[in-house]
Amino acid sequence: MPTNAPLNRKLRMGLIGGGQGAFIGRVHATAAVLDNRAALVAGALSADPLRAKASAPDYDIPADRAYTSYTEMVLAEAKRDDKVDFVSVATPNHTHFEIAKAFVEAGFNVICDKPLTFDLAQAEELLKVVEASGVVFAVTHNYTGYPLVRQAREMIQSGELGEINAIRSCYIQGWLRTRLEADNQKQAAWRTDPSKSGAAGCFGDIGTHAYNLGRYITGLQPKQISAHLKAFAEGRALDDYGTAIVRYENGALGTVTASQISHGRENDLFIEVDGTKAAIEWHQEEPNKLIVRKNGEPHKIYTRNGGPYLGAAAGASSRLPSGHPEAFFEAFANIYNTTYDAIIKRASGQKFETTDTVYPNVYDGVEGMLFITQCVESSKQDGGWLPFRHPKSRK
Amino acid sequence: MPTNAPLNRKLRMGLIGGGQGAFIGRVHATAAVLDNRAALVAGALSADPLRAKASAPDYDIPADRAYTSYTEMVLAEAKRDDKVDFVSVATPNHTHFEIAKAFVEAGFNVICDKPLTFDLAQAEELLKVVEASGVVFAVTHNYTGYPLVRQAREMIQSGELGEINAIRSCYIQGWLRTRLEADNQKQAAWRTDPSKSGAAGCFGDIGTHAYNLGRYITGLQPKQISAHLKAFAEGRALDDYGTAIVRYENGALGTVTASQISHGRENDLFIEVDGTKAAIEWHQEEPNKLIVRKNGEPHKIYTRNGGPYLGAAAGASSRLPSGHPEAFFEAFANIYNTTYDAIIKRASGQKFETTDTVYPNVYDGVEGMLFITQCVESSKQDGGWLPFRHPKSRK
Amino acid sequence: MPTNAPLNRKLRMGLIGGGQGAFIGRVHATAAVLDNRAALVAGALSADPLRAKASAPDYDIPADRAYTSYTEMVLAEAKRDDKVDFVSVATPNHTHFEIAKAFVEAGFNVICDKPLTFDLAQAEELLKVVEASGVVFAVTHNYTGYPLVRQAREMIQSGELGEINAIRSCYIQGWLRTRLEADNQKQAAWRTDPSKSGAAGCFGDIGTHAYNLGRYITGLQPKQISAHLKAFAEGRALDDYGTAIVRYENGALGTVTASQISHGRENDLFIEVDGTKAAIEWHQEEPNKLIVRKNGEPHKIYTRNGGPYLGAAAGASSRLPSGHPEAFFEAFANIYNTTYDAIIKRASGQKFETTDTVYPNVYDGVEGMLFITQCVESSKQDGGWLPFRHPKSRK
Amino acid sequence: MPTNAPLNRKLRMGLIGGGQGAFIGRVHATAAVLDNRAALVAGALSADPLRAKASAPDYDIPADRAYTSYTEMVLAEAKRDDKVDFVSVATPNHTHFEIAKAFVEAGFNVICDKPLTFDLAQAEELLKVVEASGVVFAVTHNYTGYPLVRQAREMIQSGELGEINAIRSCYIQGWLRTRLEADNQKQAAWRTDPSKSGAAGCFGDIGTHAYNLGRYITGLQPKQISAHLKAFAEGRALDDYGTAIVRYENGALGTVTASQISHGRENDLFIEVDGTKAAIEWHQEEPNKLIVRKNGEPHKIYTRNGGPYLGAAAGASSRLPSGHPEAFFEAFANIYNTTYDAIIKRASGQKFETTDTVYPNVYDGVEGMLFITQCVESSKQDGGWLPFRHPKSRK
Repeated sequence: MPTNAPLNRKLRMGLIGGGQGAFIGRVHATAAVLDNRAALVAGALSADPLRAKASAPDYDIPADRAYTSYTEMVLAEAKRDDKVDFVSVATPNHTHFEIAKAFVEAGFNVICDKPLTFDLAQAEELLKVVEASGVVFAVTHNYTGYPLVRQAREMIQSGELGEINAIRSCYIQGWLRTRLEADNQKQAAWRTDPSKSGAAGCFGDIGTHAYNLGRYITGLQPKQISAHLKAFAEGRALDDYGTAIVRYENGALGTVTASQISHGRENDLFIEVDGTKAAIEWHQEEPNKLIVRKNGEPHKIYTRNGGPYLGAAAGASSRLPSGHPEAFFEAFANIYNTTYDAIIKRASGQKFETTDTVYPNVYDGVEGMLFITQCVESSKQDGGWLPFRHPKSRK
Repeated sequence: MPTNAPLNRKLRMGLIGGGQGAFIGRVHATAAVLDNRAALVAGALSADPLRAKASAPDYDIPADRAYTSYTEMVLAEAKRDDKVDFVSVATPNHTHFEIAKAFVEAGFNVICDKPLTFDLAQAEELLKVVEASGVVFAVTHNYTGYPLVRQAREMIQSGELGEINAIRSCYIQGWLRTRLEADNQKQAAWRTDPSKSGAAGCFGDIGTHAYNLGRYITGLQPKQISAHLKAFAEGRALDDYGTAIVRYENGALGTVTASQISHGRENDLFIEVDGTKAAIEWHQEEPNKLIVRKNGEPHKIYTRNGGPYLGAAAGASSRLPSGHPEAFFEAFANIYNTTYDAIIKRASGQKFETTDTVYPNVYDGVEGMLFITQCVESSKQDGGWLPFRHPKSRK
Repeated sequence: MPTNAPLNRKLRMGLIGGGQGAFIGRVHATAAVLDNRAALVAGALSADPLRAKASAPDYDIPADRAYTSYTEMVLAEAKRDDKVDFVSVATPNHTHFEIAKAFVEAGFNVICDKPLTFDLAQAEELLKVVEASGVVFAVTHNYTGYPLVRQAREMIQSGELGEINAIRSCYIQGWLRTRLEADNQKQAAWRTDPSKSGAAGCFGDIGTHAYNLGRYITGLQPKQISAHLKAFAEGRALDDYGTAIVRYENGALGTVTASQISHGRENDLFIEVDGTKAAIEWHQEEPNKLIVRKNGEPHKIYTRNGGPYLGAAAGASSRLPSGHPEAFFEAFANIYNTTYDAIIKRASGQKFETTDTVYPNVYDGVEGMLFITQCVESSKQDGGWLPFRHPKSRK
Repeated sequence: MPTNAPLNRKLRMGLIGGGQGAFIGRVHATAAVLDNRAALVAGALSADPLRAKASAPDYDIPADRAYTSYTEMVLAEAKRDDKVDFVSVATPNHTHFEIAKAFVEAGFNVICDKPLTFDLAQAEELLKVVEASGVVFAVTHNYTGYPLVRQAREMIQSGELGEINAIRSCYIQGWLRTRLEADNQKQAAWRTDPSKSGAAGCFGDIGTHAYNLGRYITGLQPKQISAHLKAFAEGRALDDYGTAIVRYENGALGTVTASQISHGRENDLFIEVDGTKAAIEWHQEEPNKLIVRKNGEPHKIYTRNGGPYLGAAAGASSRLPSGHPEAFFEAFANIYNTTYDAIIKRASGQKFETTDTVYPNVYDGVEGMLFITQCVESSKQDGGWLPFRHPKSRK
C-alpha cells in the first residue's frame, strides 16, 4: 500500500475545470482519491462563475473554497495555512498554459492534463517557470500508469529486451467518423476547433499518447520525425487520421498511427516493441495482459499481479489480486500516486527526481508539444524530415 | 450520474472488518465511495481492539467512531443523530450472522459479504429478522454488478434469448493448488478451515458466485441439485474442486463447476447461457465484452458503453466512454450504488423493492446458503438429487 | 516427412460410402492422400448401386473397381494381386458393423468412422473379430490428430503436468437448435433418427469426441460414469444436450458436456486438464495454440511448430512452418499417417503396437460405445452411477 | 464443389522446382491437387539434374517426364499430345523470369511464385510476353485465397464499407532476428542474398504480400509511395524491417509495415481497412474470422461458412462446415482453383477475364515488382515520394 509518510496526512487537492457537463475532471477527481491519499478541498470548476459554484457540491467542495476563477483561487489559497498541496488542471487545452503558470509561479504543485499547452512556445515558457519554481509538475499521459506498461518499461531498462530496434504504436478510435462537431457535440466541438485544440486534432488528442507510450516504455531518444496527417471527415478543420515515423538516436525506427475515423474502434491504443533479445506487445483495452515473446520459446502472457516474475513497478501499481481486473481509473490513480510520492518529498524537504520520473512530467509535456508541432509542420512539407529532439527531453 | 436525491446528502457508512492485513474490507471501502455518494464515518475494523483502533486512520475514521467491537458500535451509533445509514460487513464468514443480525435488529441497513452466514440455519433466522425489520439488505455477489452482466439479465428478462435451456457457469482459480494453509497464509487459512469457512471450501467461496451469476442473469427458478465435491490438495479439510448440476423448474439444465486447484488460472469466472432464440457468453476477466450469438448471424461482441444497442441497465452501471475499460472496483461500486438507491428511498419514506432487486439481496444470500448446504449433502450422498428451491427465493 | 519405407510404394485405399451428397467421405479421401502416401483406387461409394457407379469418377476410381456394394467389393478385392491395403468406412453409423466386419474377416485393414458401431454388442463382437484377424484397425476420433493435442498427450505421459486431477471437456454446437430433421436436412435427419444414429444423438455424435479427447490426452482409466441427457428441440427423439461426470481410477474427476442447441456455436470442442504440476487448455477452433499454465509463471502459449520446446509428436504431425496455420484436414490426415505406419509394418511383416497406438483404435471405438451406452442408461436412471471401465480399454 | 466442366478431365500439372530440401514446391504440389482437379505429371524439380531425377518419385512423376532442366521440359512437353496444361514455378526468385518466359512463349499457362521476377525490367518484359501469348498467368499471392479475404473484397466491391479512407497492413515475423544466413540456413541464405532475392529482402519477401493484400481487398489505385527500409541484423545485406506509406488515387492513406526481426512473431500478416460506412480487420494466423465494425453497433465476427450473411466468394472458397477450421493449404488451393477455372475456359475456347481476376495475376506480379523497386529507391532517397501507379495495374 502506498503511504503518505513522512507527511502523515492526506494531501489537499484543488481542481481547475471539471464543472457540470465535463468528463475528464471527474476522472481526475476519482483517480486522485482512489487510494485515500488525498482529498479534494478546493476548486475553480468552471470558467462560468455560476456553474463553478453550482458544481462544487458534486465534489464536496465547501462553498468558501469554490472559487469562481482560477485567479481568485491562486490568491486565496496562497494565503491559507491549509492551502492545497497541488492543483489538477482539467480545462480545455488552450487554457492550460495560463492556469498552470499561475499556480506554478505561486509555488503550487501541478498535475496538468495533456497536451501540456496550446502551442510549443507556451510549453517552453511554462517549462522555464516550472524549473525556476522547483514545484512538482506531472502531465497525465495516463496510459503510462497501467501496471504492465510500467512492467514493460522496467524490463527494457534492465536490458531484458536487449537493444531496441522498432516501436509500433497505434491509437485507433472511430467516434469522430462523422462530423459530430456540426451537431455541437461538446467533446467533438472543441477537439476539432483549431482555436481550442491547437495545431493538431487527432494527433494532439491521441497521437501524442501513442508516441509518449513508446517513449516512456523504451526510454529511447528521438532524433527526427516525418508525418502525414489527414482530415477524412468532410469539412473538418483539423486532422482526424495520420501516421508518423520517428528515427531514434540509436537507429531504431518508430511508427505512430492515430485514427479517429475507424468505425467501431473504441479506445484501441496498442504498442509493440522489438528488441534484440525479446519483444513485447500491450493493448490498452486488455490492460491486464502483457505479451512477451522470444524466438523459439512459447509466447508468454504476463498478467497484472500474476506472480513473482513481475518487477517492482507493476506490483507497486496494483491493488487487487491477479484475475480481478483493474482498469482505466486505477491507471490514472497510479499517475497520481507516483506524483504524490514526489509532492510528499518536496513537502518534507527531501530531494526528488524531476526528469526521469515514474510519472509523466513537464519535460514529457514539452516533448509532446514538440511532437505535435513537428508532425503538423512535416505534414505540410509532404512528410519532410524534421529534427525532433528537445534539449531537455527525459533521458 | 447516480444521485442521492431526494435525500440530498452523502450516505454515512460504517465498516465492520477491514482492519490492517485484510483485503476485502478495503475493496468495500473503495467501492462504496467511488461515486462520491457515501463517506465512511465509523467502523469496528477488527475483532482485536488494538488493531481496530490502529486501523481507523487508514480509513479517515475519527477516533471517537473507531469502535473496538461491533456490539459497542451498534449501541453507540444507534444513539447518534448522525448515525450511519448502513454498515458493510466484511468479516470472516462465521461471524456474519451475529454482526448482521445485531445491526438489522437495531434498524440499520446492511451490506454483507457472501456467503451470508456460516450455515443455513443462521441464514433462515437472519432472513426472518430482516423481513421483520424492513431494512435494506444487500449481499455482495459482486460479479452481478458488471454492466454487461446486467445487460445480459435485461436481455433475458425482455425475452431476447427466448426460453432458457442451459446454463454453464464455471469459476476456475489455481491459487490453492498447494496447501498454502499449511504455511499459515492468511487468505488460505480461514478459507480451508471448516470452523471459519463453513461446510464448504471452494463451493462456498466461489461456487456460490458461479451459481448466483446464472441465477441472477436468467431469473430461472431452481428445482433440484446434485453435486460432487473433491479435495485434491492432500490433507485439505474442505473441497477445493467440484461440479454441480441444477435442474430448473422450466426444464433447463445448469452446470456449475468451481476449482481452486487449476494451475495458473486466476479469477476465471465465466458463463454461457443458451436460449431458444440466442445465446450469450461472458468472462469476468474480460468484463467489458459480452458475446451474443444467433445461428446464421455473425457473432456479436457487445461492449460496455458500446452504443445504443445496449439497454438501460448497462448504461446506468457505466462511468467511462467505451474502450476505456472499467473493472472489478466499478462493478463492486455498482452493487453499492443500486443498494444506495433503496437506502435513500427508505430514508425518504418511499417504497422500495425488496425481492427482485437489481442488487443481490438477503434472499439471494439465503439461496446461496441452501446451495452450499445441498451441494455438500448431495456430494455425501454420491451425487443424489436433493430439492433446491427456497420458498422465498427471488422470482 | 513421413515415409512408406520399407514398403516403398503408395498404399492402395478403398472407400466405402462417400457417394454424391455425402460429406465425411470426401474428408476421408482428401485426408488420406494429403501427404501422397496413398491413392484411392477402389470403392463402394453408395448403397444405391447407380449412385455408387456415378460417384466413382469424382474420386478417379476406375470403373472396374467402382463396386455396387461392399460385399461385392470384399470378394473382388480379395482376389486381386493389387488389392487395397485398407478400406475407409464412411457410411452411416448403423452400417459400420457389417461392413467393417466383412473387411476385417477378409484380412483387410480398416479405418472406420466413429461411433464404431450401432450398439455396444456389435462393438464387442467386432473387437473379437479384429483381435482374431490381426489387422490394423483405426477409428477416426479425428481431433486427436491435431499436433498440439498430441503434444499435450506427450507432456502428460512424460509427467510434465504431474498427477491429473481434473478434466473438463466440452463440445458445443448450435446447428441443431431447431428441428432441421423435420425439413429432411440430410445431416440432421440421420443424426436424430434412433434407427440410424443409435441410442444417443448429441452424445453419440459429439459427446464421444469430447470424452475421447480427454481420455486420449491423459491416458487415465475411467471407473464410473453418471450422465444427464436432454432433448431440448421440441419433439426430437434423441438427446441434443447433456453432461456427464466421469470418475477415473486415480481419483480424478472428469466432466463432459455436449450441446447441439447453443446458438451460433460452430464446432467448439475444447478441453482443460488440471495436473498437480501444470494445467493445459486447448480449443479445436484455434488448434494451433496450446495454453500451458503454472502457478506463479506467465501463461504460456505453445504454437504448432513454434520451437524446440515442443516434443516429437507435435513435430511429426506438422507440415508447415509456425504461423502458417494447419487445420482440420491436416489433423485428419495425421490419423491416417500414423495408421499407415502400422499398416506398412504389418505389410512388411514387422510387429506393430495394437493397443496404445498414436491413432485411435478399435479399443477406443469400443470404449466410445460403452460411453454412449452407459450415458444413455445412467440418464434413464436419473444420473445413477454406472461402471465404466472396459476390460480391454487402452492403458 | 468446383468442377472441371466443360473440359471434363483432370488438368495436367508440371512443377519447376520443389526438389528434395525445398519447401514451397511441396506446398504448390499439395494445394494444386487438394480438390482433385489436377494431377502432377511432369517436372523439372531441381537445377541439379541428379536431384531433379531423384525427387520425381516423391511426387509420383514418371521417370520419362522427370526432366533435368526446364529447357528440356519445355521442348519435350510441347511435343506431347498429353502435354501439361500448366506449370507451377517454385524456384528461387532470380530464376522466375527465364523459366516463366520460356513456358509462356511455348503457350503454356503458368502459376508463378512471387515476387514475379528478379527486377522490374524483367517483369515488364514478361508482361509483354504474357499479353502476346494469351496464356493464363497467376502469381501466388496466396493470402488472397483465404475465404474471408475474398469476402472482404466482395464487401468493398459492393459498397458495404463506403469510400475507403485508410488501409493498415502489417506482416510481422521474427525468424530472421539473427543472421541465420551466416550459418547457411537454406531459407535464410537466399532470402538475404541480393544476387538471389533481388533489390529487397523483407520487403520483397513479405512486404509485397502485405501491400498486395490491401490492394486486392480494396481495389484502390495507388498513386505515390514513400518508404523506409532498415537492416537491423548486423551485417545483413538486405532490409529486414521497414515501413511504407502509400497514397491512393482517391485520397486514401495506406501504411505497410513488414518485419522479420520481431521476436516470437510467426507469420503475422494482418490488415485493417477503414471505410466511411464500416471497417474490417483480418489476421492470417486466425484466418477463419473477419471482424466487421460499425459505429454504434456490436462488433461482428464473420466466420468462414458461418451463414447466409456471407457472399458468394467466401462460399466458393470453402470446403468444410463452419467451425471446422481451414487454413493455409486450402487458401493456396483456392488460388489454384480460381486459376483452373480460367485455364479450363481457355482450353475450351471460351473467353476469360485476364485483368480483374479473382486470382492474383501477372499485372499484380508487375505491380509487386514496382512496389519493391520504388520502396528501395524511396528509402535511398530518405523516404522521398515516388510515383507508384503502373499503367496496366488491375483496375
